[in-house]
Amino acid sequence: MVTGVEAPLTVTRVGVVGLGLIGGSVARTLVAAGLDVVATDPDGATRAQAWDAGVRTVGSAAEVFVERPDVLVLAPPLAALPAVLAELGAEVPRLVADGGPLPVLTDVGSVKAPVRVAVEAAGLGERYVGAHPMAGTEESGFAASRDDLLPGCTWAVTVSPTTAADDLLRVLSLVTGPLRGTARFVEDATHDAAVALVSHVPHVLATELLNLTTAAPAGALALGLAAGSFRDGTRVARTDPRRTQAMVAGNAGAVVGVLRDAVRHLDALADALEAGDDAAVTAYFDDADPVRAALVGEPAPSRAEAVRLDDPAWRERLVELGAAGAVVGRAGRDSITLALPPA
Amino acid sequence: MVTGVEAPLTVTRVGVVGLGLIGGSVARTLVAAGLDVVATDPDGATRAQAWDAGVRTVGSAAEVFVERPDVLVLAPPLAALPAVLAELGAEVPRLVADGGPLPVLTDVGSVKAPVRVAVEAAGLGERYVGAHPMAGTEESGFAASRDDLLPGCTWAVTVSPTTAADDLLRVLSLVTGPLRGTARFVEDATHDAAVALVSHVPHVLATELLNLTTAAPAGALALGLAAGSFRDGTRVARTDPRRTQAMVAGNAGAVVGVLRDAVRHLDALADALEAGDDAAVTAYFDDADPVRAALVGEPAPSRAEAVRLDDPAWRERLVELGAAGAVVGRAGRDSITLALPPA
Repeated sequence: MVTGVEAPLTVTRVGVVGLGLIGGSVARTLVAAGLDVVATDPDGATRAQAWDAGVRTVGSAAEVFVERPDVLVLAPPLAALPAVLAELGAEVPRLVADGGPLPVLTDVGSVKAPVRVAVEAAGLGERYVGAHPMAGTEESGFAASRDDLLPGCTWAVTVSPTTAADDLLRVLSLVTGPLRGTARFVEDATHDAAVALVSHVPHVLATELLNLTTAAPAGALALGLAAGSFRDGTRVARTDPRRTQAMVAGNAGAVVGVLRDAVRHLDALADALEAGDDAAVTAYFDDADPVRAALVGEPAPSRAEAVRLDDPAWRERLVELGAAGAVVGRAGRDSITLALPPA
Repeated sequence: MVTGVEAPLTVTRVGVVGLGLIGGSVARTLVAAGLDVVATDPDGATRAQAWDAGVRTVGSAAEVFVERPDVLVLAPPLAALPAVLAELGAEVPRLVADGGPLPVLTDVGSVKAPVRVAVEAAGLGERYVGAHPMAGTEESGFAASRDDLLPGCTWAVTVSPTTAADDLLRVLSLVTGPLRGTARFVEDATHDAAVALVSHVPHVLATELLNLTTAAPAGALALGLAAGSFRDGTRVARTDPRRTQAMVAGNAGAVVGVLRDAVRHLDALADALEAGDDAAVTAYFDDADPVRAALVGEPAPSRAEAVRLDDPAWRERLVELGAAGAVVGRAGRDSITLALPPA
């Protein structure tokens, strides 16, 4: 593992719009790291809670924006994002007229393509670098946020054909610096396909286990017999079905494809069990072997590759290496060094 | 909660055939409780390990049987059960000729109907009361067995139209006495349907998540992004796919039905997501509400019902109350008192 991530662009002031579980945890972590944080949330009680926790809050997203943070973190629910972006967009002409740099925009949402669409629709696309921390709990809201939820977690950082190098470096500086995360580069569509696999569809299948039990004549007894593994395996389906639903519906394109694959596999397994086709049943359980092996322990990165930011294909290369399992090691003004697993 | 379970029939000597995770844990727990345990396993190294752990081992299942334990616990893999039963059956005429009671047979298998079929095929059905402790770990084998795995866990205890009251009381005495478990009564078929829901299909869906990730182009990146919830949710699919497969195939009848239901539900959810049918998607996530509520905390039993064992319908009543969520409170020679959740 490459340690001592370095990132060259100073981030001293950070804006946070939306103080739920993740936005709140971003704000708390940055305050704890000594950064100047300016934050808001549409809910006054949430702002008061955040203020009491040491987060400087203001009354609106526009007020956060005009303080010109180095990076502004968008952390509202996906449905509320267009309104927030419209509010920010309205301030742009004045900020531009006053001169000086505009904030880099990033976000923490669990789907990336729809966020880019919304950001571009608001005319803010050229300053946006998407991000997604792979962290969460069953709880939600500022009250559940913590300054130890994000440190150590993996962040997906999105690269598009128009990503500006300085903006990417700024977001990297934030993520791998005061937020103490590990960064992996990815395109929007690949990100959304990946989180369908490791987050959204797992939430659906956990919900499905509850639905099957609800519908079954033996359901009440089944719950009486349920051991810890059932309770553990369905925990993600137990709280706030509306939040799960919003996540799944927000990534419907990718989720639907994965669900159709699951339907096909499970139907084939049922056929094989019914026919007593042991070879097919064995094959079903063996299909997972490569992932089983990978989950037992990821190999330590054994090589490093530097991508120069004056290479015309630097974006494509970052995304390629990200797909191959690379994590960000060191970022300089001119190049980003990635740590790769053994070839 | 009714505490201080009492059971009236003394169990002083217990036989255990098969010293894997569960059989080994039964033996260790009973030895720790001061009972006279006589056990065997076909593997000599396992017998030696058990001996070193304080379990008195002998060379064969027949040797265990002829020591006339009060209860003999069958704990081999399902596939090995018919051979074990044939070995026991061959000793019956001699034991009968010598006079005195024969051991009550019980087991710890995760499916119940196939075990009863095997026991009856061996001519031992009339002395059999099935049992299944809802406990387990990802590990297997005697080395993984512990004397603290079973205490506190829920046991399904099966009741059939031919169950003998004294044999049931003997198994209850063992389960709720030295094994310190909670007992719930159930018929074979209902048991097998219930464990398909809370154990076997959850194992399949966890395996399916690994299979989907293996097959997907974004799979490698997905694993890199996978947070703790994916790792936790797939843990049961990670070790010993052969054991999982044996469990699933051993309960194929019930598992297939549940898988077909899951296929139907998931396909309908994919349709609803594709069509943007929010009402249908919402309904999908709300269907689980009753089970969500039940899992948050089971209500404390608030009433008790005694079933007299001279009531001609005592078996049916035990099974009815078991299906309604009853756990065994107190068992006497003449009646069994069950604790029930609020009506």
